[in-house]
Amino acid sequence: MTLGGIRSVARCDELGAAPYSDDPAALFRPYLGPGYRATLARITTWMVEAGMTTRIDAAGNIVGRYEGLSPDAPALMIGSHVDSVRNAGRYDGMLGVMLGIETVAWFAARQQRFPFAIEVIGFGDEEGSRFPVSMLATRAVAGTLAEQTLDLLDTDGTSLATALETFGLDLAHLPQAARPREHVLAYVEAHIEQGPVLEAENRALGVVSAIAAQFRLRATVGGVAGHAGTMAMHLRRDALAAAAEMVLAIERIGGAGPDDLVATVGRMEVHPDVPNVVPGDVVFSIDIRAGTDAVRNRAADAIRAALADIAARRQVTLNVAVQHDLKATPCDPGLTRLMEQAVQTATDAAPRTLVSGAGHDAMVMAALAPVSMLFMRCRGGVSHHPAEAVMEDDVEAALRAMTNFIERFAAWASG
Amino acid sequence: MTLGGIRSVARCDELGAAPYSDDPAALFRPYLGPGYRATLARITTWMVEAGMTTRIDAAGNIVGRYEGLSPDAPALMIGSHVDSVRNAGRYDGMLGVMLGIETVAWFAARQQRFPFAIEVIGFGDEEGSRFPVSMLATRAVAGTLAEQTLDLLDTDGTSLATALETFGLDLAHLPQAARPREHVLAYVEAHIEQGPVLEAENRALGVVSAIAAQFRLRATVGGVAGHAGTMAMHLRRDALAAAAEMVLAIERIGGAGPDDLVATVGRMEVHPDVPNVVPGDVVFSIDIRAGTDAVRNRAADAIRAALADIAARRQVTLNVAVQHDLKATPCDPGLTRLMEQAVQTATDAAPRTLVSGAGHDAMVMAALAPVSMLFMRCRGGVSHHPAEAVMEDDVEAALRAMTNFIERFAAWASG
Repeated sequence: MTLGGIRSVARCDELGAAPYSDDPAALFRPYLGPGYRATLARITTWMVEAGMTTRIDAAGNIVGRYEGLSPDAPALMIGSHVDSVRNAGRYDGMLGVMLGIETVAWFAARQQRFPFAIEVIGFGDEEGSRFPVSMLATRAVAGTLAEQTLDLLDTDGTSLATALETFGLDLAHLPQAARPREHVLAYVEAHIEQGPVLEAENRALGVVSAIAAQFRLRATVGGVAGHAGTMAMHLRRDALAAAAEMVLAIERIGGAGPDDLVATVGRMEVHPDVPNVVPGDVVFSIDIRAGTDAVRNRAADAIRAALADIAARRQVTLNVAVQHDLKATPCDPGLTRLMEQAVQTATDAAPRTLVSGAGHDAMVMAALAPVSMLFMRCRGGVSHHPAEAVMEDDVEAALRAMTNFIERFAAWASG
Repeated sequence: MTLGGIRSVARCDELGAAPYSDDPAALFRPYLGPGYRATLARITTWMVEAGMTTRIDAAGNIVGRYEGLSPDAPALMIGSHVDSVRNAGRYDGMLGVMLGIETVAWFAARQQRFPFAIEVIGFGDEEGSRFPVSMLATRAVAGTLAEQTLDLLDTDGTSLATALETFGLDLAHLPQAARPREHVLAYVEAHIEQGPVLEAENRALGVVSAIAAQFRLRATVGGVAGHAGTMAMHLRRDALAAAAEMVLAIERIGGAGPDDLVATVGRMEVHPDVPNVVPGDVVFSIDIRAGTDAVRNRAADAIRAALADIAARRQVTLNVAVQHDLKATPCDPGLTRLMEQAVQTATDAAPRTLVSGAGHDAMVMAALAPVSMLFMRCRGGVSHHPAEAVMEDDVEAALRAMTNFIERFAAWASG
């Protein structure tokens, strides 16, 4: 008998190349493209083999259903996304869908049914893989599409309406993908960590307590440009030297904790950016994330204060503008506790709870149902890259945790 | 009677627009272009009015000669350049040429001649205004062209040979512009400071002790890229945070003195340069200048050591490559003393001696003859920009210093 975790990895590997990718040389599976269509057909086969009935919903998501003890029982949903970024890794998203299928297969093999159905969903668009907005298909299911314009074009100029039509769907019917709240008991997602924490701590699995709150700020520092040879050091108002001090302040505040706080300067633009001119202006990004809005906000306030001090001392101007402001999405505390217990059982180790700094479908699904997330260790924290890698033993442990979670959930829901 | 300093400024202003510029909207006077040709014609008129004979040499430089007491006397040369960068200021280079003409006019008005001739030279290319090399025409005069390939194309694809031919010259004759050593007693150049020191110290004039030694280095920092949301702070090897610490070390070492030492990071490239990725690689420039090679070298050694320490502590890789290595050009100590005395007389203030952080024709001419340089205060240290500005009183003082210098030089040379 093939072990389900190992088979999940093998299936992700199979789906990592043509005909399941639109790029013959790398994995790229944009929403509603040819690779996407082939992928859904392959997944349908596996879902049926695992004992599910399948359908493609109005947003192009693939949904498999393993009935409960009564035919119209509400569902516990297990899911993640099937689309990918360009030059992607094979496990981001897809591994969670494959583990959902294996979880059902495990119970189906034992002919074990629950007072609830289990649905496995592969979301069509989490990455913003085709249109300039992310989690489009997930929002359709969560019923939060109204916040979003659907007048979208992909990079080839194809509209969302045409893309859906080509796929056999209708933009006007997109809202029908929304699930009524009473049909969904909970949403559970297994995903690779996409970060280095579990690996650094030598752990197979982690339980997500929240998806991080995020600020993206844009800081503009205005100094005085000057000739690098003739502008005496004590007369300078060097925008890059000021920005450098700010980068270090941001790093220091981000590193001062708590553990789930991160602060990053990822982008920096220097003007005029020539070797023999003292920089006159610098623009840089600040990305701040934390498990709670309060921690994020405190860090952002501390960063703003530190930057203002540096600017005042160095007599440079400073403007800090907010570009994104995303609140934290806490996972359901009750489900998180069940998942911690499941991880303890599956790994025989104390569970590690951590905040997800990256966004996930669960963030959107939290509007519809209580959510829980399980993280699997990945090599070097690498994701969105062909070097993305997992260990089969970890995925086996994840499958044990998922099945154990379902059993605990059944006991908890009936208790 | 018009004052010579004021007239020098007015003439620079006149030459700051069409037909003396190739750009109708701003000053741009590249070597051998139509604006350059018109400029030489206008300067010829002024040289003749001032009592000089004129010629255009084999490199297209304009040369006016005010004979000495005997017809074939060697010359004291006064010069600077007549070409300009794009979107230039009006005084960079040209003001030194105009002051040379006024210096001669002053003696001619008094019918005063010396045992040496005075030649005023307007160099055709100091800025690299047309071909991808600077001081081409100056090197032709100094006889140091051999170091340089002449197989050059301008941005329109016109060769130097064709440009010279269009102007009525011949590439094959370019070496004939070289002056024999015994014909040139000294080279004196008046120039705007292009820096803020004189203004900050409320001085009209400065005497240049040396043209700075320069290193241009290119530092490459290799960290580990990672997701800005998932890469915990304590696990990062952030190339930009490391580079920021290096920028501050470079600023600190540059600022630790002596006064003529400057160190600048003007250019910085961040990879992948997106807000949600911890930077994996950063490349930046380091420009180090000082009045002596020894001070420059000590600073460069200190910077290399500091950067290596930072890289080791942060576990990032570091490569530092030398891109330019220019030795210092000391001005002649005897001439510098004369110029200091002339400035004292002209301004009734103790002379300020400073190092030129920018390159000048004098740097090349030092290979041919002892050189001396006089700096004039400019507004805000601004140069290579239309906002370049001088004060008429300062230029009047500069003219007094130049004429006084010539008289002191005559006494010194005969003594």
